[in-house]
Amino acid sequence: MHNSALKTDLYELTMTAAYFDVDLNLPATFELFVRSLPEPRGYLVAAGLEQAIEYLEAFRFDSEQINFLRAQPVFAHVSSSFFEYLAQVRFSGDVWAIPEGVPVFPSEPLLRISAPVIEAQLVETYLLSMITFQTSIATKAARCVQSAAGRSVLEFGSRRAHGPEAGVLAARAAFVGGCAGSSNVEASRRFGIPMFGTLAHSFISAYGNEEQSFRDFTKVFPDDTVLLLDTYDTLEAVKKIIAAGLKPAGVRLDSGDLASLSKEVRRRLDQNGLRQTKIIASSDLDEHAITALLAANAPIDVFGVGTALATSKDAPALGGVYKLVEFNGEPRAKLSESEEKISYPGRKQVFRYCKEDFYTGDVIGLKSEAFPGTQPLLEPVMAEGRRVGPRPTLGDTRKRSFTELSKLPEDVRRLKNPQRYKVSISSGIERELQTVRNRTSPVRLIA
Amino acid sequence: MHNSALKTDLYELTMTAAYFDVDLNLPATFELFVRSLPEPRGYLVAAGLEQAIEYLEAFRFDSEQINFLRAQPVFAHVSSSFFEYLAQVRFSGDVWAIPEGVPVFPSEPLLRISAPVIEAQLVETYLLSMITFQTSIATKAARCVQSAAGRSVLEFGSRRAHGPEAGVLAARAAFVGGCAGSSNVEASRRFGIPMFGTLAHSFISAYGNEEQSFRDFTKVFPDDTVLLLDTYDTLEAVKKIIAAGLKPAGVRLDSGDLASLSKEVRRRLDQNGLRQTKIIASSDLDEHAITALLAANAPIDVFGVGTALATSKDAPALGGVYKLVEFNGEPRAKLSESEEKISYPGRKQVFRYCKEDFYTGDVIGLKSEAFPGTQPLLEPVMAEGRRVGPRPTLGDTRKRSFTELSKLPEDVRRLKNPQRYKVSISSGIERELQTVRNRTSPVRLIA
Repeated sequence: MHNSALKTDLYELTMTAAYFDVDLNLPATFELFVRSLPEPRGYLVAAGLEQAIEYLEAFRFDSEQINFLRAQPVFAHVSSSFFEYLAQVRFSGDVWAIPEGVPVFPSEPLLRISAPVIEAQLVETYLLSMITFQTSIATKAARCVQSAAGRSVLEFGSRRAHGPEAGVLAARAAFVGGCAGSSNVEASRRFGIPMFGTLAHSFISAYGNEEQSFRDFTKVFPDDTVLLLDTYDTLEAVKKIIAAGLKPAGVRLDSGDLASLSKEVRRRLDQNGLRQTKIIASSDLDEHAITALLAANAPIDVFGVGTALATSKDAPALGGVYKLVEFNGEPRAKLSESEEKISYPGRKQVFRYCKEDFYTGDVIGLKSEAFPGTQPLLEPVMAEGRRVGPRPTLGDTRKRSFTELSKLPEDVRRLKNPQRYKVSISSGIERELQTVRNRTSPVRLIA
Repeated sequence: MHNSALKTDLYELTMTAAYFDVDLNLPATFELFVRSLPEPRGYLVAAGLEQAIEYLEAFRFDSEQINFLRAQPVFAHVSSSFFEYLAQVRFSGDVWAIPEGVPVFPSEPLLRISAPVIEAQLVETYLLSMITFQTSIATKAARCVQSAAGRSVLEFGSRRAHGPEAGVLAARAAFVGGCAGSSNVEASRRFGIPMFGTLAHSFISAYGNEEQSFRDFTKVFPDDTVLLLDTYDTLEAVKKIIAAGLKPAGVRLDSGDLASLSKEVRRRLDQNGLRQTKIIASSDLDEHAITALLAANAPIDVFGVGTALATSKDAPALGGVYKLVEFNGEPRAKLSESEEKISYPGRKQVFRYCKEDFYTGDVIGLKSEAFPGTQPLLEPVMAEGRRVGPRPTLGDTRKRSFTELSKLPEDVRRLKNPQRYKVSISSGIERELQTVRNRTSPVRLIA
């Protein structure tokens, strides 16, 4: 983990060199948030905080990294003492965050970091990619799980993820979002996520003889065997299973018309005493395909979702940003020419209203404000560079996301054309914004 | 690298356990290819081979990983000798591949692996995610570079990548596809990619005083300073630069109407003797936005492309597959019910026709076939588990992609509605397919 310090943008290092050399390494507060909800999403599910904390706890540059930086022409005029500073810098700041598994909305800070500006700035790129990636996958998983209406959803997308490490992180985030498990073995080892696997067409092709491959695989894996049906002909494969007297825990359909095939497979299994055998479907599934299959009464018990989930294919990036909101005790903001790129000043908290077990709206306010009857979402997770509070288990986080999502109004959770959840900005923040505007050069707003 | 062995799907391990326990660890050949071109792409640029080779060279399970696997209930009935086998297994196979930087098309094997089936099967998931991810990013980069018509394109998307490691790999693949460099520092350290950085709005916001922040930043970075203009008001920022007598190497526009702003900024810079100052634009760019800006004669010298590039946002996954084509010396194929999921049997080669410096079409044939006047694309890259041939520098690979792409017909390279490049299947492969069909159970093709 310690060698992650260079996984950052060059400008984080040039800016911090400038802060150092002009003696401006003053206390700063940054907030990480998402600008907008990718359609057709009505909510996001926060994820990735655990890896963010681990990174901050371990943050350091090793000597090879320092030597690399010193040798770069861009740093030719930077003082040598900056690199001596970098060689010993650790993250010593305070972090508040919205816990993983909690639904969040645009402009709401998922993370608030207060630290000397150099420390807070160096970690921007890593935190953004870790948190917005996992948040996008947890969100997609929650949508798939919602569409499955109580049936299990498994994450099967490692092979289509953005490199092998992204596959491991996607498996974790999918579990946070409600998946029952993943095919990814490293995610199981690292995070304890239940792992699931069946067999591939190649195994059956290798034999050439489908029935023999089923027999042999069942011999080695007598419990929980899942046999793949569509290497040659799905319904013929069912016949062979029945003829051979096999009793697989499940069968998997991976191509063809899943609705009609699953019905016919179910009928044949049931007719032959295989009522316990589950039907698992995979094949370019996503929340919309699952909805359509269940609307067609497809008797599918488990959905394996791959590419659409591990890449959040219809919205593979969230517009995550990390904005300076306070510097040396004073509020700061970006007062851009385009209204949608404005950021709000001041240390914030998100206050959530709840009525009869449903969330009814949020106020983004200053940390110092109070909104009676609301629940504040950001909690302290690091103080002076150290983790505070208990480390939740991943299983608890997953349970939390189920509970939390059940409190969102139905129309906000809707998978298409959701209603917009109400998020307002407090008068305290509006006042801070005015303070910032008055202090800086006049802003000319152009359309 | 050695701890990557578990970055795989569980079924790779269950299938290999079965092969081991039924004594079927026979020679096998797998091929990795992409099923279709995501619209509106006319070509793909192969990338990721170097990391694939490094992974195969280092492939091994350590004792902690073996112990983890042994403890999993799914393996309860697997023989202990399988785990002893895993503990000492190394990749000992032969690998042929299409070099990085070469344009490729659907169904063309990017990689062909011949090894004992267990070795070849275990590496499937890692190879697919590494090669298809980098290929998708190199392709997107090539499109952006093409749209920039000779101006530089920089990869700025690390913060939106699928986790920090995906950002590093995206920077590499973008360089292969023709980008001039990246903002990612680790990619520069690891791969020697030129790195670029400017400064962020937060630096200017921290000061509150834009002019002072420009002066200080220029003092620390007197060479190649790039100043960011849109924290408050783009044109006012230009006035301040001129008034302060600064001579930045570049200025960056990050919001607003980039076409009109760049013209006005250029005019004011030129009027004040800053003809050398380059204009860099960033702000949700992609190949289509760049095309539109250049069509509007925007005087932009450098394009920074972030999210769209680092996630290949409009097509974040390629339909990469890894198919068994030969087992124990006999051809194998998946004869699925759906025509588009069929895979072709036999060890293949891609034969490319070239006429007057332009590629005119490919034939996917058997390795043993000959097509006079064509260039075979797959080259041996590993023999008996060891790298063969020279390791190309990344700079040479990037040059190669420029040369190769210049040989694609204009209408195949077109960024929208490209003409389909002609790829045909040889009669030798059709014969092999018939052999496989005749040998296995009759296939019923349903619509």
